[in-house]
Amino acid sequence: MKNFNDSKLKIIPLGGLEQIGLNITAFEFEDSIIVVDCGLAFPEDDMLGIDLVIPDVTYLKNNIEKVKGFIITHGHEDHIGALPYILRDINVPIYATKLTIGIIERKLKEHNLLKNTKRKVVKHGQSINLGSFRIEFIKTNHSIADASALAIYSPAGTVIHTGDFKVDYTPVFGDAIDLQRLGEIGKKGVLALMCDSTNAERPGFTMSERTVGKTFDNIFSEHRNTRIIIATFASNVDRVQQIINSAYKYGRKVVVEGRSMVNIISTALELGYLNIPENTLIEIEQMKNYPDEQMVLITTGSQGESMAALSRMASDVHRKVSIKPGDTVIFSSNPIPGNEKAVSKVINELSMKGADVIFQDAHVSGHACQEEIKLIYSLVRPKYALPVHGEYRHRKAQAGIAASLGIPKDHIFMLHSGDVLEVCDEYAAVVDQVQAGSILVDGLGVGDVGNIVLRDRQHLAEDGILIVVLTLEKYSNQVLAGPDIVSRGFVYVRESEILMDEARHVVENALDECMNRRISDWGKIKNIIKDSLSDYLWKKTKRNPMILPIIMEV
Amino acid sequence: MKNFNDSKLKIIPLGGLEQIGLNITAFEFEDSIIVVDCGLAFPEDDMLGIDLVIPDVTYLKNNIEKVKGFIITHGHEDHIGALPYILRDINVPIYATKLTIGIIERKLKEHNLLKNTKRKVVKHGQSINLGSFRIEFIKTNHSIADASALAIYSPAGTVIHTGDFKVDYTPVFGDAIDLQRLGEIGKKGVLALMCDSTNAERPGFTMSERTVGKTFDNIFSEHRNTRIIIATFASNVDRVQQIINSAYKYGRKVVVEGRSMVNIISTALELGYLNIPENTLIEIEQMKNYPDEQMVLITTGSQGESMAALSRMASDVHRKVSIKPGDTVIFSSNPIPGNEKAVSKVINELSMKGADVIFQDAHVSGHACQEEIKLIYSLVRPKYALPVHGEYRHRKAQAGIAASLGIPKDHIFMLHSGDVLEVCDEYAAVVDQVQAGSILVDGLGVGDVGNIVLRDRQHLAEDGILIVVLTLEKYSNQVLAGPDIVSRGFVYVRESEILMDEARHVVENALDECMNRRISDWGKIKNIIKDSLSDYLWKKTKRNPMILPIIMEV
Repeated sequence: MKNFNDSKLKIIPLGGLEQIGLNITAFEFEDSIIVVDCGLAFPEDDMLGIDLVIPDVTYLKNNIEKVKGFIITHGHEDHIGALPYILRDINVPIYATKLTIGIIERKLKEHNLLKNTKRKVVKHGQSINLGSFRIEFIKTNHSIADASALAIYSPAGTVIHTGDFKVDYTPVFGDAIDLQRLGEIGKKGVLALMCDSTNAERPGFTMSERTVGKTFDNIFSEHRNTRIIIATFASNVDRVQQIINSAYKYGRKVVVEGRSMVNIISTALELGYLNIPENTLIEIEQMKNYPDEQMVLITTGSQGESMAALSRMASDVHRKVSIKPGDTVIFSSNPIPGNEKAVSKVINELSMKGADVIFQDAHVSGHACQEEIKLIYSLVRPKYALPVHGEYRHRKAQAGIAASLGIPKDHIFMLHSGDVLEVCDEYAAVVDQVQAGSILVDGLGVGDVGNIVLRDRQHLAEDGILIVVLTLEKYSNQVLAGPDIVSRGFVYVRESEILMDEARHVVENALDECMNRRISDWGKIKNIIKDSLSDYLWKKTKRNPMILPIIMEV
Repeated sequence: MKNFNDSKLKIIPLGGLEQIGLNITAFEFEDSIIVVDCGLAFPEDDMLGIDLVIPDVTYLKNNIEKVKGFIITHGHEDHIGALPYILRDINVPIYATKLTIGIIERKLKEHNLLKNTKRKVVKHGQSINLGSFRIEFIKTNHSIADASALAIYSPAGTVIHTGDFKVDYTPVFGDAIDLQRLGEIGKKGVLALMCDSTNAERPGFTMSERTVGKTFDNIFSEHRNTRIIIATFASNVDRVQQIINSAYKYGRKVVVEGRSMVNIISTALELGYLNIPENTLIEIEQMKNYPDEQMVLITTGSQGESMAALSRMASDVHRKVSIKPGDTVIFSSNPIPGNEKAVSKVINELSMKGADVIFQDAHVSGHACQEEIKLIYSLVRPKYALPVHGEYRHRKAQAGIAASLGIPKDHIFMLHSGDVLEVCDEYAAVVDQVQAGSILVDGLGVGDVGNIVLRDRQHLAEDGILIVVLTLEKYSNQVLAGPDIVSRGFVYVRESEILMDEARHVVENALDECMNRRISDWGKIKNIIKDSLSDYLWKKTKRNPMILPIIMEV
């Protein structure tokens, strides 16, 4: 028995709208589901102790027989990072371009998942058929090579998903974005456009990646007598290519440092996305054989990550490189929102070591600004606009752009994770909600840290904990031992012996009160201890530590 | 007996160099010490639970008989905020301009310190004599009215301290910076210049505050039909004045919301630094009597502070104002480094409520850019340059500017907190180190939270705590009760009963081992419990919670 609604196209973002990074969208038509991207996010500041955040794919699990495959637009963590976690439950083939598959394979190998996962390399211009869908990969430009937009053809119509993109007419590697094809598909009629919103608040055009190469040339020519250290995103292979070009031009050897940098570069080299002249790349151990002015170090750590190579060099804990007065350090990156302070800390440390730090003009964004977004809308001319990828404010800015180009406001959808958007020629509407959102990963635990645990960690972080232990005699409830008070993270105890003594008296009085009122229920006794101690400590210190009474019985 | 060195001028930064905000510098000559500014800092991200950071003034306490007074350059928290804490030990008079004293008095009143603190209002152009020093207040411009540079005259020579400043030829209130006087003093010979470094990395000139007024006029004229809400720094009285001017011009009433905003505005009004046309300012309760298009709300919260009025409006917990679709919200501010994410969160929330958020062009900085810094150096022509106010990178950038203007590198000093710089016509050199730096304030506790407590809070925040309690029989060390395990912030316990059961077995085995090995020392028993449980949990969860064994004896 077929439900009428089953023959509509459904678009279901399972993440990536509230929690930046969790890019994953399901497309459903009758008995077919395809999934575009499968990203992870890094924890927000209030997610204490959390390592990673991955999307909640309960909906896919519940419809596992329909799911035909993952289509991945490009090889960034916020589009591929959750695959090793999600594939355990949703073991379907992965489709992507060559470099993207290469990066995914390295990741799967680390997680011991390579053998059991089907992968298929797709070329730009090629299509694949998955159930009711045909998906065409379209060349775009981005801060990683081999990025794709997708044309998703279904019986209900065509959806264009841009992936992360910019328009680069003069890319460093390969072709410019295939604007002709986007125009051609647009001319035939596109139901919906899902377009990258990251830079939708920024006017104008994003500059070509090639302009950074010119900046490197200038910096190299102005710093012929010093060692040059350049921090950038590991995955920006084109950036690395340009550093290598400048290094070669100015007679320098190149060392690559930082695990993720080494990984990506070796993948890119294997697959032919990087072209390094012979005898240019050397091992870090060989550095000592060359004078400083013949060296370039390419390193991770451009976001001030405390464990990355550059931070370790800056704080003198790197085993092989230390910063020397005169070193020229280039940040070929912008801080991602939230990382500004960490980056500044590293810049300060580098300056204190006497390095000359350059952090201007040595970076361009990988995302489209307003005029590029307008260009895509004008080529595709979608019936419906579904801004994706970015914080709410960025998606809202794209909604404004779409409206300014004549798309009626009720054809623009600001979706939430879990929304089921039904879309066809006649209408588009959010018709349902499915379980979606984020799952926290802490150590080996996936999903076992929730709000209660986080709230406790927050409380502990704020004012520490006081533990009150006492041993009661069975039946009589006479205190046999204690009350003892142990604290951690509250106040340095040796400096506050009086405070702790008084706190013990407060607990003893509370216990006396319980005896006098003949309260024998442990829950009640604990609450009375908690309340009286909490009142006392607030009055004395204006602090509110977690108070944990523990009663034992003998 | 007089030590030769006593007749040199000593400049001792007691804070403000490593920890931004703690601006406080001692100037010492023979038996006289004067102290310039007395600021507080907000805690760094790793100072969990800390409310404030204040400078360590042990050096002043140890030389209390020499200390003549505090000279305050302007009324910002990072220059006055620590006064209520420091005055308790260093009770000397405060000298500052009228608005600055007004703001300080309000603060002292809150701390019940007004009666016991001497204050003296000084006018620009006036000098005061304190021991061996004469201090002249010189008009500057900044993002708060009544800011001063100081000319500090001592027998060893003259030091110019710029305070926080910019060059505004067309200020909103009062006069432009007194460049003539700086030139005149410079002509007579200046030993050292201590100049604001905040914007030393930025080329060009900072725009006049007046340009923001034009932006407000444009925004008001383009948004005639909506309510306008403007978030800015409470202390920027000139900004508030310009908002009021635009409001009056466009026939709107003004409501002020947020405690610090209300405080500063009433102080500024009382002292004549703010000029509000009659019937323009209304109480928040009267808002309901006016249509939205006749209202402007000036509010705190421009930095995304979670407890400030704007954040509470955005997240729907403000008792009197809620954001409506169509509201125009203007951020008349830039995020201070570290606040970017919090600001973005508020912008997202406002957008979700349907507000139109404007955060460009409605702000100018209060600090001098490179060309202004060059101007000051060219007027003052100091022998020695001591860049102050800013992160290391900013001070280093000013050092570069000073060098580019011909100051020899060995006449430029990048000081550290606690450095004692001896300076005279013949030489300048760091000759000593005194105790200095930062003291943490948590609730009522000043200095009772140190590294151990912070490290514990960090540990608790990361993975939570497991408490193992057991009661032993005296002498025999037989286990009478327990081991019980209680956890907080580790893992949601109901979802991990098996884990906790196994953990209890691990502890029981550890106890058995202690019995078999006849270990009766409690310290040793606790360590064995800790180690075995820690190993087990790491193997099972890759987490490292704090483990706290507590033994009672009956």
